Amino acid sequence: MSAPSGQGVTAPRGFRAAGVIAGIKASGRPDLALVVNDGPGQTAAAVFTRNKVKAAPVLWSQQVLTTGRLKAVVLNSGGANACTGPEGFRTAHATAEKAAEVLQCGAIEVAVCSTGLIGAQLPRETVLAGVEKAAAALDATPAAGLAAATAIMTTDTVAKQAVAAREGWSVGGLTKGAGMIAPSMATMLSVLTTDAAVEPEVLDRALHAAVRVSFDRLDVDGSMSTNDTVVVLASGASGITPGEEELAAALTEVAKDLARQMQADAEGVTKRVTVRVTGAASEDDAVVVARTVARDSLVKTALFGSDPNWGRVAAAAGYADADLDPERLDVTINGVTLCRGGVAAEDRSLADLSGEDVLVEVELGLGSGEAEILTTDLSHAYVEENSAYSS
Amino acid sequence: MSAPSGQGVTAPRGFRAAGVIAGIKASGRPDLALVVNDGPGQTAAAVFTRNKVKAAPVLWSQQVLTTGRLKAVVLNSGGANACTGPEGFRTAHATAEKAAEVLQCGAIEVAVCSTGLIGAQLPRETVLAGVEKAAAALDATPAAGLAAATAIMTTDTVAKQAVAAREGWSVGGLTKGAGMIAPSMATMLSVLTTDAAVEPEVLDRALHAAVRVSFDRLDVDGSMSTNDTVVVLASGASGITPGEEELAAALTEVAKDLARQMQADAEGVTKRVTVRVTGAASEDDAVVVARTVARDSLVKTALFGSDPNWGRVAAAAGYADADLDPERLDVTINGVTLCRGGVAAEDRSLADLSGEDVLVEVELGLGSGEAEILTTDLSHAYVEENSAYSS
Repeated sequence: MSAPSGQGVTAPRGFRAAGVIAGIKASGRPDLALVVNDGPGQTAAAVFTRNKVKAAPVLWSQQVLTTGRLKAVVLNSGGANACTGPEGFRTAHATAEKAAEVLQCGAIEVAVCSTGLIGAQLPRETVLAGVEKAAAALDATPAAGLAAATAIMTTDTVAKQAVAAREGWSVGGLTKGAGMIAPSMATMLSVLTTDAAVEPEVLDRALHAAVRVSFDRLDVDGSMSTNDTVVVLASGASGITPGEEELAAALTEVAKDLARQMQADAEGVTKRVTVRVTGAASEDDAVVVARTVARDSLVKTALFGSDPNWGRVAAAAGYADADLDPERLDVTINGVTLCRGGVAAEDRSLADLSGEDVLVEVELGLGSGEAEILTTDLSHAYVEENSAYSS
Repeated sequence: MSAPSGQGVTAPRGFRAAGVIAGIKASGRPDLALVVNDGPGQTAAAVFTRNKVKAAPVLWSQQVLTTGRLKAVVLNSGGANACTGPEGFRTAHATAEKAAEVLQCGAIEVAVCSTGLIGAQLPRETVLAGVEKAAAALDATPAAGLAAATAIMTTDTVAKQAVAAREGWSVGGLTKGAGMIAPSMATMLSVLTTDAAVEPEVLDRALHAAVRVSFDRLDVDGSMSTNDTVVVLASGASGITPGEEELAAALTEVAKDLARQMQADAEGVTKRVTVRVTGAASEDDAVVVARTVARDSLVKTALFGSDPNWGRVAAAAGYADADLDPERLDVTINGVTLCRGGVAAEDRSLADLSGEDVLVEVELGLGSGEAEILTTDLSHAYVEENSAYSS
């Protein structure tokens, strides 16, 4: 499902990207990315975290996105620039100004995204020098897209890119995210690009439709970040204007692909878990039940132990804030229905959880609402990574 | 704070208790307890889980508690009798009938509580024989109260009892609970006793008032159980009728003591964490923010690692469903204010988290609402215990 040969944001026509070592990270790894839309169009839309504690780059980018137009996005790892007050906002602003200077556009045409430790100021001059360095490295090659995807990794172990090709136009994307992933948008920075020719309002609606069923359905640890940002840039270079639904479908395809990549690379993951709820009174109820099961620590530790403990699934479904009739509740794990009508059915030893993929199906028997949430198990490695790493 | 010399439910006059090995647990450990109110009064009240998937004994006990009177409570470990359908309900009913037979009362005067694995039927005859055995062992001694507290342990490592002595009357209690503890009542079975002479309505109100600020403020893992039950029995044997507030205060004292004991013995705990929120727009908001911080996996793993990662606390507060102004947010960990007005303040290295107790204070600067939630860290041992143990 992943993009062949590392294709990502530079796959659609009209885009260049770069990823460089700015020196923000003490480790000396790549830490600054730049994605530039060379047009002819500059339509853009974005979705941001709903956390009330918003990072400085989120506050900046929300402002510039009100125009529905962007020339470029600057992204850095090595520091979230969150809880950094007016000084942090000035750094985000200066970053956009620097990009505008080297790209010969206005700062209002530059979005900024950051990821890393909350609460520390970014080294402003280091970031600004990094922007110059990245601008000099801009290229439209697949390698350049991969470099950008690599430069925003934190606890990610692999760079994450995806492409959806259509007749004459395409959508590309990159993302990062491995922890602090939930509950309504995966913690992440993601840039999607398309060479479709699109009006801002259409792009905005299509992006929201795509995010709702992709990034919004990934929940690794229930923690909503201060920095979540998904930006889409449309260059119009293909000269093709797809219908809104067609555009939304292509954005969804790329976003779902990227969400699956984040699930597979989540902190400490040993199982890729899909929680599918059917028969709910509504789609909203299905999402609530699936999310509650997906976030339950006892369910997640049981899955880490390859234990088909359906009772914990039933208990989690039962405390979800949604309609539920215990006597209609079925729980199926990897194809074996262990609970039917709220009581034990097949023998739990029949459910084989030895593999890396686990499908937990919850049938509520109430209506036609359904939804899937992607999550992971809760492992020793998750505890290790998050107790030993200040992030 | 714990009861001296293991005093618990038998401390108030008019109560006998027993804990025996019925043979429900394969391990051969004590697994059935009986607490009997010898009067002269038999007033009772209870609070049950709000999980929609309720265990059979909860369904039974909810019915019998509608009378506001109880002679006895039967409690078993070794099986939750949850998701067991009509057959499981018949077992709960038969258990009450057996207790009524040996105690010469009606089944409607007997509450039943169970804890253990969800989804398996209890061995009914084993349970019934255990009730007879427990009835034969009933005694009013401290040792009998301790035996009852011991017989309901699951992953608990110590028996949990508490007493509040007043002028001429007292409140005693026992509880169990170590995991699946949250979010509105700690997962637990608890029996409180008092020799005060009380009307059912007064006892009910006083119990709810006590639970609201004690068991309801303990949140180990955010998982609400199918079996949560707190029962209070009043014998009237002291002949004293305290005022409602006085009664509620004594019940609260015992319930808070028991809640602290559950926190200290929680699965895999290495840190006892208190999250105190002040300056909230309301008490409800304070509870929501404190609970959200207390449940956040990234906060909990950071505390396990003795890392004063205030940024994760700020992020968790920010996604809580409560009023919050990022610019008024202070975060203080073990007395060191690391975040003031939403930005870094004191150096994080000044916060010493090497001890077992951690106090996380969040000041919202909005109003006078405040609340505390007791929780724990998220450790390797929690993952180990819950991935290796089917419970």
